[in-house]
Amino acid sequence: MDKNNHVVVMAGGIGSRFWPMSSAEMPKQFLDLLGTGRSLLQMTVGRFAGKICPIENIWIVTSEKFLDIVQQQLPEVPRRNILLEPCRRNTAPCIAYVSWSIKSINPDANVVVAASDHYIANEENFCESIKSCLQFTAETDSIVTLGIKPDYPSTGYGYIEADLSYPSATNPNIYRVDSFKEKPELEVAKQYIKENNFFWNSGIFIWNINTIINAFKVYQPDLANTFKKLSPYLGTSQEQEKVNEIFPQCENISVDYAIMEKADEIYVYPASFGWSDLGSYSSLLSLLPHDMRGNACVGGDVRLFDSDNCIVHATGEKKVVVQGLDGYIVVEHDGVLLICKLEEEQRIKLFHD
Amino acid sequence: MDKNNHVVVMAGGIGSRFWPMSSAEMPKQFLDLLGTGRSLLQMTVGRFAGKICPIENIWIVTSEKFLDIVQQQLPEVPRRNILLEPCRRNTAPCIAYVSWSIKSINPDANVVVAASDHYIANEENFCESIKSCLQFTAETDSIVTLGIKPDYPSTGYGYIEADLSYPSATNPNIYRVDSFKEKPELEVAKQYIKENNFFWNSGIFIWNINTIINAFKVYQPDLANTFKKLSPYLGTSQEQEKVNEIFPQCENISVDYAIMEKADEIYVYPASFGWSDLGSYSSLLSLLPHDMRGNACVGGDVRLFDSDNCIVHATGEKKVVVQGLDGYIVVEHDGVLLICKLEEEQRIKLFHD
Repeated sequence: MDKNNHVVVMAGGIGSRFWPMSSAEMPKQFLDLLGTGRSLLQMTVGRFAGKICPIENIWIVTSEKFLDIVQQQLPEVPRRNILLEPCRRNTAPCIAYVSWSIKSINPDANVVVAASDHYIANEENFCESIKSCLQFTAETDSIVTLGIKPDYPSTGYGYIEADLSYPSATNPNIYRVDSFKEKPELEVAKQYIKENNFFWNSGIFIWNINTIINAFKVYQPDLANTFKKLSPYLGTSQEQEKVNEIFPQCENISVDYAIMEKADEIYVYPASFGWSDLGSYSSLLSLLPHDMRGNACVGGDVRLFDSDNCIVHATGEKKVVVQGLDGYIVVEHDGVLLICKLEEEQRIKLFHD
Repeated sequence: MDKNNHVVVMAGGIGSRFWPMSSAEMPKQFLDLLGTGRSLLQMTVGRFAGKICPIENIWIVTSEKFLDIVQQQLPEVPRRNILLEPCRRNTAPCIAYVSWSIKSINPDANVVVAASDHYIANEENFCESIKSCLQFTAETDSIVTLGIKPDYPSTGYGYIEADLSYPSATNPNIYRVDSFKEKPELEVAKQYIKENNFFWNSGIFIWNINTIINAFKVYQPDLANTFKKLSPYLGTSQEQEKVNEIFPQCENISVDYAIMEKADEIYVYPASFGWSDLGSYSSLLSLLPHDMRGNACVGGDVRLFDSDNCIVHATGEKKVVVQGLDGYIVVEHDGVLLICKLEEEQRIKLFHD
């Protein structure tokens, strides 16, 4: 475990697809979606802390209003490492802020950036993959993304096209990226799958701190200037006040657009540790343990009769009996009950106004 | 309102067909099934008190373990009028007990006996029907039952066959009973409906106190002797102790078998005030107000999408969203959730062990 390793966990999401479990006040990353007793954020930090880096090198970037939840769920993360965005400006300003913060503490830092609300099946394999990438970025001025070997032609993920004939000089498992692809139509996704050099874009990045700061300077000079000016205030009592001033003026732009699609030295590490962005009840159903009829239940005493392919999530109920449902979501959370066909789940966000 | 009128409400039922709302500790009669803000017991007493008889002439017969609930729901009913059965022995011992109790207070009492958990649609019509019967039984030594003009060939109710060519001498709306019929098969029920002299047996009886006491003496001499011996203790501090001794030894028998099918002077008053024994979720659904797609909802904020013919009862939830269900029961009560096809509701009692 290298003390130069730092891990950034982005925890500012406000998804509503897991309503009624998730809400604007309690988004997905803070929920125990998988019934493990730990939130997705806690599981994410647990995959890194003590394995990839010491706990004091974990950074959480989140919204101001989630500070209490983060401190409650991660009491061991230093308050100094919890960065608060006064408003949402997508991933590029978020990563710029945390990058200058890390640089101010350790100019030799080697950094992993990850979402707080994704699922990883094989944590050992995941850890090895991350370590391999960190070794690579410690030695080279490269940006590495984790690409996931696709299981099926997903239309819900972006893809990374790799040039498999061009492995990196120092790590034969890391390849040059040819291009990033937006979420494709099904026919296009099927074509990607047929070829073997397309990978799901996991949104997990690895780089050393100088590489990313230089990339900001070259490709996003306005953002770079903004956060360079913030540097004298980082770690001081004035930091938050200054961040609140400058953040709203930052361009709303993802790091993919801002840097990835522009920079040259972009690499992909094709991984297969079992990954999902947990973007829907269907994806959650596919990951949870199933009974013989394809049902997945989270919650104490759930009994199913004549039911198939249902996801039942009711951790607050003493008892749940479901009879005669096929392909439904049943969720009870904090006094709110949702029953909805899985195939209609994209409408859930319309239900809860 | 005649001060000789007394009303007996039988509230010892322990049904489980409305699980999870009803339970052994909180049976149906104590629940606000209809979403009116009052329990079925409270609604039943409300139909009589101050209209048919003064509140101090209301008698509740129930199980020992429901005393607290009854006193909580009916604080205005005198404690003396709440009779407690130490065990369940069907309706004949229950009615014998309350009859000797009423007789000890008012030997000229004119009595209505009714279940605590039935539904009455037109309360004014109901009140008039009861008054008409009470006038009849005040003047004659007759037992009157309320017969309900059937809406459909129910196989869930017993029937009363009336001799419509033989109205009573003093009330042209009251007829001699030819026979009582058990719950019939569908074909038989259809035949009953075709003839016009078959009525649903509502289990509501009207008689004067001497008529029923004499009937017990003639047709159930053992029961009569038992409760005659109890008489000196009625209203004393020893009453409950003595009841607890004798009640378990009483025969387990309904008043229908014990008296109705044996006595001669049995009459029926054909009524049409809208009645149901509320024996199932289906019957509850048919009585509750519906939306245009046949759904009935009880509970604050229930929203239905693409759903038909559902009953949703969730008074404890802040919000309920149901999408894509047709013909289902959805009930949340006190931390227990049931989702079940209406057509499978007879299996509900098997679900909750």
